[in-house]
Amino acid sequence: MSQTLTYKILEKHLVEGKLQQGEPIGIKIDQTLTQDATGTTAFLLFESMGLDRVKTERSVSYIDHNMSQFGPENHNDHLYLQTVAAKSGAYHSRAGNGICHQIHLERFGRPGATLLGSDSHTPTGGGIGMIAIGAGGMDVAVAMGGGAFYLTAPRVIGVELTGELSPWVASKDIILKLLSILSTKGNVGCVVEYFGPGVKKLSVPQRSTVTNMGAELGVTTSIFPSDEVTGKFLNAQGRPEAFEKLEADEDAQYDRVIEINLDELEPLAACPSSPDNIKPVKELEGINVNQVIIGSCTNSSFTDLMMVANVLKSYKVHPLVEFAIAPGSRQVLNMMAENGALSWIIQSGARILECGCGPCIGQGFSPANDTVSVRTFNRNFAGRTGTVGDNAYLVSPETAVAAAITGRFVDPRSLDTKYPTVELPEAFLIDDSMIEKPLTPEQAKTAEVLRGPTIVVPESPKDLPDVLDSKVLLKCGDKITTDHIMPAGMYLKYRSNVPEYAKVVFNCFNQPDEPTFAQRALELKSKGIGGVIVASESYGQGSSREHAALCPMYLGVRAVIARSIERIHKANLINFAILPVEFADGSDYDKVQADDELVIVDLRDAVKNGDSVLIHNRTRNIKFTGKLSLSQRDREILLAGGLLSYTKSKSQS
Amino acid sequence: MSQTLTYKILEKHLVEGKLQQGEPIGIKIDQTLTQDATGTTAFLLFESMGLDRVKTERSVSYIDHNMSQFGPENHNDHLYLQTVAAKSGAYHSRAGNGICHQIHLERFGRPGATLLGSDSHTPTGGGIGMIAIGAGGMDVAVAMGGGAFYLTAPRVIGVELTGELSPWVASKDIILKLLSILSTKGNVGCVVEYFGPGVKKLSVPQRSTVTNMGAELGVTTSIFPSDEVTGKFLNAQGRPEAFEKLEADEDAQYDRVIEINLDELEPLAACPSSPDNIKPVKELEGINVNQVIIGSCTNSSFTDLMMVANVLKSYKVHPLVEFAIAPGSRQVLNMMAENGALSWIIQSGARILECGCGPCIGQGFSPANDTVSVRTFNRNFAGRTGTVGDNAYLVSPETAVAAAITGRFVDPRSLDTKYPTVELPEAFLIDDSMIEKPLTPEQAKTAEVLRGPTIVVPESPKDLPDVLDSKVLLKCGDKITTDHIMPAGMYLKYRSNVPEYAKVVFNCFNQPDEPTFAQRALELKSKGIGGVIVASESYGQGSSREHAALCPMYLGVRAVIARSIERIHKANLINFAILPVEFADGSDYDKVQADDELVIVDLRDAVKNGDSVLIHNRTRNIKFTGKLSLSQRDREILLAGGLLSYTKSKSQS
Repeated sequence: MSQTLTYKILEKHLVEGKLQQGEPIGIKIDQTLTQDATGTTAFLLFESMGLDRVKTERSVSYIDHNMSQFGPENHNDHLYLQTVAAKSGAYHSRAGNGICHQIHLERFGRPGATLLGSDSHTPTGGGIGMIAIGAGGMDVAVAMGGGAFYLTAPRVIGVELTGELSPWVASKDIILKLLSILSTKGNVGCVVEYFGPGVKKLSVPQRSTVTNMGAELGVTTSIFPSDEVTGKFLNAQGRPEAFEKLEADEDAQYDRVIEINLDELEPLAACPSSPDNIKPVKELEGINVNQVIIGSCTNSSFTDLMMVANVLKSYKVHPLVEFAIAPGSRQVLNMMAENGALSWIIQSGARILECGCGPCIGQGFSPANDTVSVRTFNRNFAGRTGTVGDNAYLVSPETAVAAAITGRFVDPRSLDTKYPTVELPEAFLIDDSMIEKPLTPEQAKTAEVLRGPTIVVPESPKDLPDVLDSKVLLKCGDKITTDHIMPAGMYLKYRSNVPEYAKVVFNCFNQPDEPTFAQRALELKSKGIGGVIVASESYGQGSSREHAALCPMYLGVRAVIARSIERIHKANLINFAILPVEFADGSDYDKVQADDELVIVDLRDAVKNGDSVLIHNRTRNIKFTGKLSLSQRDREILLAGGLLSYTKSKSQS
Repeated sequence: MSQTLTYKILEKHLVEGKLQQGEPIGIKIDQTLTQDATGTTAFLLFESMGLDRVKTERSVSYIDHNMSQFGPENHNDHLYLQTVAAKSGAYHSRAGNGICHQIHLERFGRPGATLLGSDSHTPTGGGIGMIAIGAGGMDVAVAMGGGAFYLTAPRVIGVELTGELSPWVASKDIILKLLSILSTKGNVGCVVEYFGPGVKKLSVPQRSTVTNMGAELGVTTSIFPSDEVTGKFLNAQGRPEAFEKLEADEDAQYDRVIEINLDELEPLAACPSSPDNIKPVKELEGINVNQVIIGSCTNSSFTDLMMVANVLKSYKVHPLVEFAIAPGSRQVLNMMAENGALSWIIQSGARILECGCGPCIGQGFSPANDTVSVRTFNRNFAGRTGTVGDNAYLVSPETAVAAAITGRFVDPRSLDTKYPTVELPEAFLIDDSMIEKPLTPEQAKTAEVLRGPTIVVPESPKDLPDVLDSKVLLKCGDKITTDHIMPAGMYLKYRSNVPEYAKVVFNCFNQPDEPTFAQRALELKSKGIGGVIVASESYGQGSSREHAALCPMYLGVRAVIARSIERIHKANLINFAILPVEFADGSDYDKVQADDELVIVDLRDAVKNGDSVLIHNRTRNIKFTGKLSLSQRDREILLAGGLLSYTKSKSQS
């Protein structure tokens, strides 16, 4: 039977279940990646499971998120991760070496492999034909230990690319176009697979921009075929042996096909405050811009930045624009230092930021109030810039550089300069000296792991009760992101310290002079009453941060009841024994308000083998049905009190 | 009569008083500089005084402190400063262009001129024979408006340099040596003037390192002669016309002469947690180091960084060291991008930070707990790194780079490589495109000043009462720095918003679950009771930040009673109508405790023409005498209710 590329790779990695759409399956994971904002928890859980050495083909720990280092927390994390990785058999990319996805593509990824990463933009690897999936750190810890990763065999959306990008139109515009079609919700359980004649016109960095920001669709992952373009890229990275040609069968059937004609694309922008709020840039022309940033795992490749450098050669940055460029990796930075392009950028008046996630994850560079910020990033959720009421637009590097030099939105095609087409180099500058190799098992035995006082082993979840006596701590609306649940920015540094970080759960909803969510939750917890969060559509979208489950768990949250819950977040809830419930009837959302008392009886039985729970709203004396969409494994994890206990008990049995 | 260089320049600028040691004098200010952490207040006060255009030869506003931009405050400040400078006739150096002192030296300073800067390291300009003095923003605002600057005609300490620096011994070691001799206290009212045959062996960047960190001595300023070396530097900066040969008369008399033989110097380090806690590096050998930073206004010149780059060419950074380099200016960065040296640094594994103050002012890069941080900065007060209980050492770039590659303290002379002597370039790369020129008076009339909502005009001081009924809010010990009074780091962003920033006055002394200093002070204020701070020696040392007076004033503090008060801070107290009092008998310090009620009667009379006040400790029923060391002008300012009212009233009279 003819197959999609997605199913070909899944089949090769299937270790549990039946590979049939909608069925729960377990797949072998070849590679893992962790970054420092999720990695400390992943490694702490890895250690808690009693695991010793990683059992994957390659596991890599990266430092790229927390490099601001206000207070000792970040540096404590760096030293912990470097020493625990070395001891556990994982590679470690030091702070300053660059963004995990960029480096993984450059130095580790290989077509046909499965990659599980504790970062929602792990699908970047799909640009070279990997099945690369973002997950919570707990799932990644299990995979590092050789355990399978569990998912629902996906629906595959085929995106047929035809034509070729015009000058000043970028691969970023492809994914923005797709976001305008599919939006950020309703795509749970899908994989987006690219095919068609337009594919071979796109370089690996261009493809990876598309698969990277595919995360914003809420899909499981996105994937491109691996072809001669992929081979050329791997060759230029000095890794020809990693290449394997891979594509879908010619008559592969997709669940849905969307055609995007690259000839017809124009520069697009995601307007405030959602990645799917798409408009053509020409409709935004004239809007003043005071800040422009080029970088992030979406758009910081050598080719992206060389294009920008070439444009800047003939321009100066507009005096009222703060323009920053954050190269994706030390490879990119160093090549531009060597070929002179860095100097063109500096001379234009741009600021060079460190190779890392930086402003994309709210680590500085927040815009002034009532100004417009234009970014090449992948997310523009309200407030993510660090400025309440921000106006952040997501665009291509082409559109960004045009805004930087003119001080306003302009369609880059109207710039009075020739489009600088940049070819991929024949050979990248390869220098892995900031990637630490793991110790040998013998060396590891006596190696010390550095644990600063801010590295705190997370508490384990409480067992699921048979009768859940609970209260609604918060009722929220649509599209609550993990940024709403667990703010990043200045709080990101508390990732390794759950009791501290939990203080700011749902901080955006806290009111001055009123008890915080955390305070209210802890009070309930102390009385033995469970906390419940009620939400509407797409609860938990955005990043993979499992702290959005782990910290609420610590605060005593026992259930989330929503119209829909995003894939990664739902898995994280289950991993930390928080019950994910969907309204059987969406209109029941109106039957529950903040502070209502909810009772669910026979909960353990329902989790064991039921499809629903009856929820009694004691405050209003009404009942409604909650749907349980759980795999057998999900049920076992919930009943075991979370993935950690589950994994421990399995390894003992 | 033969004169010191200091008195020659003072004489040329004297506009008030008699130029005789110990006498209060007023001098004309030729140039001013402000940076963003003090500049917003300076410009807000400039505007409040009803001043219109700057009247100096050159006033420059710089952005270099607050470039992390967590939240909208920093960018709001940048936009305000850029637009207010343009309107007021001042130049403006944009964020990313570099550190004020480095740029001022490169592009604006001139021998023989007076420079007043709202930054305590303004004496950097002494490296080219300027009388460059740090002061509060209020004083600088007055100077921008053409007003004189008032000081006590100084004692001049002559430092005679003989011999020549050996390889791996740096000019940083000269100032560390001097700090070991003079310490950080007891030097108020002095100027340090360098002379002797060793001077001509030092380049301008080397001289400026010495005058820069001279600030840590607590002196008014430090100065080198302007000679052929100075001329060569100004010529290479494309400013030969700025050169003027200046030196002390041959038989000039100094109040004290200290000889430093450069031949005999060795690499030194200021150990935790004071710049005068000096030890030879060889005594520290073997101590593990996990963080090294090269940068700050003390050591980030082209020649410093080229030396470092040359060393790094043959080494990699030790894997357990996080090593960052922050170039002092865009000129430095760009020259190193052009000549390839930047690439050597990147390849070594160093992280490149933005051109700015960065970690020196606590903007990130805090070290992990219980680790050693080695920095080329000028201050290592406890906690200034952002990590409580930090171990920060101050060293030369030579010693720093040796620690970075070995992971421990080593005397750089023991490195197995030849010392890379770096010559000053014949011509620096000159590009002033990030320095905005002021608008013409005509253009300025209609120009808009951008004021984000976090730019708040500071409240004016209350009039000094005749009977001060007060309570001791805090009793503290020796060497309380302005960092203790007003923390920087994450709080630095509140500089333009006094009510917000005042919340963290004396934050380091606040205890969890107890009312903060600010809360206690505001409660007293609401009752009409004045707050008093009691301290021991050298109160208010460190940076020039006038918020250390402005915010306590906002909280209702009316007096500081200390064994001694540092010069800049004392001036700031007076400017904001807080009475600076010294214990007539130092042992009376023991006669007052926290929460004691103190009463001073006939206060206005005493300030008008007395030398002391009688302080009645009502709680203990004892009396002691407080000394008032005030110039006539100080008295008038205090009685007028601060410098703002004083200046306004004078301009009306």
